[in-house]
Amino acid sequence: MAESMVGLKRTHRCTEVSSANVGEKVTVMGWVQKRRNLGALIFVDLRDRSGLLQILFDENVIGKEGFDKAYTLRNEFVIAVEGTVNKRSGAVNENLKTGDIEVIAESLRILSESETPPFPIEENIPTKEDIRLKYRCLDLRRPDIQSNIIMRSQVATLTRAFLANEGFLEIETPMLTKSTPEGARDYLVPSRVHPGKFYALPQSPQLFKQMLMCSGYDRYMQIARCFRDEDLRADRQPEFTQIDMELSFVDVDDVIDVNERLLAHLFKEVLNVDVQLPIQRMTWQEAMDRFGSDKPDLRFGMELHDVSELVKNCGFGVFTSALENGGSVRGINAKGQGSMPRKKIDALVDFAKGYGAKGLAYIAINEDGTYKSSFAKFMTDEEMDALVKALDGEKGDLLLFAADRNKIVWNVLGALRVELADKMGLLDKNDYKFLWVTEFPQFEWSDEEERWVAMHHPFTMPMDEDLDKLESDPGAVRAKAYDIVLNGTEIGGGSVRIHQADIQSRMFKALGLTEETANEKFGFLLDAFKYGVPPHAGLAYGLDRLVMLMAKRDSIRDVIAFPKVKDASCLLTNAPDVVDEKQLKELSIDIAKEETEEKSEEN
Amino acid sequence: MAESMVGLKRTHRCTEVSSANVGEKVTVMGWVQKRRNLGALIFVDLRDRSGLLQILFDENVIGKEGFDKAYTLRNEFVIAVEGTVNKRSGAVNENLKTGDIEVIAESLRILSESETPPFPIEENIPTKEDIRLKYRCLDLRRPDIQSNIIMRSQVATLTRAFLANEGFLEIETPMLTKSTPEGARDYLVPSRVHPGKFYALPQSPQLFKQMLMCSGYDRYMQIARCFRDEDLRADRQPEFTQIDMELSFVDVDDVIDVNERLLAHLFKEVLNVDVQLPIQRMTWQEAMDRFGSDKPDLRFGMELHDVSELVKNCGFGVFTSALENGGSVRGINAKGQGSMPRKKIDALVDFAKGYGAKGLAYIAINEDGTYKSSFAKFMTDEEMDALVKALDGEKGDLLLFAADRNKIVWNVLGALRVELADKMGLLDKNDYKFLWVTEFPQFEWSDEEERWVAMHHPFTMPMDEDLDKLESDPGAVRAKAYDIVLNGTEIGGGSVRIHQADIQSRMFKALGLTEETANEKFGFLLDAFKYGVPPHAGLAYGLDRLVMLMAKRDSIRDVIAFPKVKDASCLLTNAPDVVDEKQLKELSIDIAKEETEEKSEEN
Repeated sequence: MAESMVGLKRTHRCTEVSSANVGEKVTVMGWVQKRRNLGALIFVDLRDRSGLLQILFDENVIGKEGFDKAYTLRNEFVIAVEGTVNKRSGAVNENLKTGDIEVIAESLRILSESETPPFPIEENIPTKEDIRLKYRCLDLRRPDIQSNIIMRSQVATLTRAFLANEGFLEIETPMLTKSTPEGARDYLVPSRVHPGKFYALPQSPQLFKQMLMCSGYDRYMQIARCFRDEDLRADRQPEFTQIDMELSFVDVDDVIDVNERLLAHLFKEVLNVDVQLPIQRMTWQEAMDRFGSDKPDLRFGMELHDVSELVKNCGFGVFTSALENGGSVRGINAKGQGSMPRKKIDALVDFAKGYGAKGLAYIAINEDGTYKSSFAKFMTDEEMDALVKALDGEKGDLLLFAADRNKIVWNVLGALRVELADKMGLLDKNDYKFLWVTEFPQFEWSDEEERWVAMHHPFTMPMDEDLDKLESDPGAVRAKAYDIVLNGTEIGGGSVRIHQADIQSRMFKALGLTEETANEKFGFLLDAFKYGVPPHAGLAYGLDRLVMLMAKRDSIRDVIAFPKVKDASCLLTNAPDVVDEKQLKELSIDIAKEETEEKSEEN
Repeated sequence: MAESMVGLKRTHRCTEVSSANVGEKVTVMGWVQKRRNLGALIFVDLRDRSGLLQILFDENVIGKEGFDKAYTLRNEFVIAVEGTVNKRSGAVNENLKTGDIEVIAESLRILSESETPPFPIEENIPTKEDIRLKYRCLDLRRPDIQSNIIMRSQVATLTRAFLANEGFLEIETPMLTKSTPEGARDYLVPSRVHPGKFYALPQSPQLFKQMLMCSGYDRYMQIARCFRDEDLRADRQPEFTQIDMELSFVDVDDVIDVNERLLAHLFKEVLNVDVQLPIQRMTWQEAMDRFGSDKPDLRFGMELHDVSELVKNCGFGVFTSALENGGSVRGINAKGQGSMPRKKIDALVDFAKGYGAKGLAYIAINEDGTYKSSFAKFMTDEEMDALVKALDGEKGDLLLFAADRNKIVWNVLGALRVELADKMGLLDKNDYKFLWVTEFPQFEWSDEEERWVAMHHPFTMPMDEDLDKLESDPGAVRAKAYDIVLNGTEIGGGSVRIHQADIQSRMFKALGLTEETANEKFGFLLDAFKYGVPPHAGLAYGLDRLVMLMAKRDSIRDVIAFPKVKDASCLLTNAPDVVDEKQLKELSIDIAKEETEEKSEEN
């Protein structure tokens, strides 16, 4: 029978009781973590958000009725205990904050009973994720997950306070709105009042925050929920959270400055980690050339080396034909991996193929200085030596080469580099390496659409010195765009926006957008731009990813209270679910039957 | 031609420049509020978020080119000015924070030009709201709206910091979820991955925050977007924002305590208003009896008086039949309104009818002590005198009476009281009168559903002393529910929740819910409740309404950056809008044509 807590008042959370309270009466409440009977005594570990506290039930103190009641306690029962704090007579538990004390119970109320939970409420339990997510209420009680959620709260609170202090205003933007130009698939919301029309859930507050700059709010911030109806990967959720900001009358350095101080503040306050400022900056071009990635992980080296010059006349057709097609040959040195068995090397080749490589050439440097290589027979000894030298190859190293179009070579070696580092144990989750990647290309060529598309978005400002190439050489135009990268993960990105009507119109032209299309897509922002636009720039962080890295987890699902799984469903609530016909009727929509019917007819 | 700000760095916002800076070089940027030519000088009022600053262009200082450029400036151009701060030679402008200084421009850049805005960027302009909302970007520049939005940001920031300091964790709950049991109409989001299934946007985070209590988070808060697809009134939006919180191991007084201190903190910090603590409390019954409202406006008296006893044997059938049907006769005294012309009294009668009254009886007390009354002829002189005395009637007063079922009498006189106070100028927006209304009825009888329905929600805890009436006399059960009322507006409400399985199951029975239905509606919370539930309670504020009152506005649209209008559309973005066939196909939905067709066929 569950009792009420009327008449009681909690005096302390579990770990707020300490040896300073010895002799005092306290009232504590929480969950039974464990009950042990020891002769005529019952010990209970009481758990709340703060941690554990030992409760001692002694029949001589609490009386027979209370003692018998304590005997019925099972894991996860919620109880209230009044008692006196006592210095532990037995051994001190060094693992507990309250390990030197206990509370000797004088009264006990069972506030709520519990069935046996499907898995123990402990750290790092090996329970399958789908069970954990179905019983998320219990999973969220586990100390490791709880500390993630608490850390997330801390990060949000610190971020808001820091930015408020820097003159940012928190302004809410609509959730029921129109498509934003991010280009991913929108979640739609049918309108009841306007049959046949739909709201879209925002992919980001991009247009609204630029509007707010036009309206003179100067500095905007919001921790904003965003939505993208894409197929999910490990680090994607249908709804995710951005720390979003926009600043007026600024250029790149101003945005970087405030954000470096924000990151340093967060890492100091939450993790007691000192972030060395200024954070290193690297152009996109350098990042690709050295690391094969626009989000290089700087916790380890293993840089890419362009060996095209060395092999342009060699006898290995894979290399020379890549060069003839305008590509390159590049390699990385996996230090000390020269004795990797053939099977594992083959696995790396398969891994590389997954990133678009046709193959992977390698040189293993034996301990006696000879080479084991997949392509030595096509090469002169001098050419082989030159390759080894170019990659600083030493005895015991494994050199891996890719040859293809630059984009593929970068992709392959960039991914391979991280894969190898992981296998080599080089990825220390306690080591935080930040990097700004700057000067992104303004455009990417889309083979599909046969036109230049914006790499960031169409409002991104080109670099001043590249403005004159907007028409003549779009591929060479660099943007005032920047990403902030942490340990190989992009945790945020942004850009300076175009505030000049003439440049904006040249940009739309370069993107092959007619004035009409541009107006249709971005109309209300372009309208706002007619009435005086300040220069402005912004940045948005993926809060989920940032907290995931801070909490040293591999999945953002571990830092989201109620996450969805890969098929975008929630195992806890069973959302999405069927709805009443009446609801659909009110919204003037039907569930399409054609497709299913067509398929049945075909069979 | 718009210029770039490259090479410039803003040194001050407009009103950050002061007489302390006289002689210093500054760089300021903002919008041209006004340009005046005065002989060989040009004066510009420069505006930014902080306010106005006067810029002086003197050809002798800036040179001909700069002067000519200044001559082209028009309202809302965005400019950057480098110059020197100067003590004003002319008259000091007492209305401006920067009224004793000016900046003598040495260089000028036009960062952005502007077309002529459709309305002036000034306070309290009489422009139609639909024009303002269409050009919201410009409307948001007006100082009064800007100060509302800034106040809202302040309120959010202060609330979060205060609650974090009180041990609350900010935890995000899902937006793509299942129906919550609020009972209003849901906004639905079709699932692409699960054809025929839908997410619902949350009406509140109610179930999730109770889950979080089950998971041991102890104190939760969130400033959460909520959605209700209802027909809109002046103070309703399809999406609105709650300051939402939930606490474990607490009873009513704990919730009230932390929230009183929160409110006092907000009003002190934002408005420099001292809220007298503790805030007055009143039971629901007293609020109805004295003010005819569960959200009484305490800025004025004009209380209701039950005169049923005095008239039960009178000759006025309207009174006696109301009493015979179990109703009551009550009156209010509109002090000093005795000389109200008949026409205006008739308008009041019509007003009362809008609230369900069949009529309104009145006594006007003439200056000579005689009465003018609609029903004197049915009454004895003694009865009339008794009524006047019961309402403390004095010469010049107007007494108004309603007779009907209690609910209607309360509604009518409650509304009339506020209507009269408004006309009598008793509603001072600078006077903040808070009130807790407590002990709400647990149930209301629904004629439509022929059953008791929960007045708050089915998880609300009955008062301990009323628990035994749950089956025998549901109508008499009072709930541990509380509303916080400010100046006649409910700004927040909440309750202690049921944490005992046996009481919850009696509650469902009282509501006529089978176990099956309850599981279907609230399944995942009830599942969570099997594993140890702490006593918990919560409260949620309507942030929009709270800020509206703090900003002394009549519409929440004035404190929302991008509000929607009555038909739930956004005049700025034109949301909702039609979407591509392709999008609908991916979502496996069609726009229903039947209804329209059926209607056409009928015609």
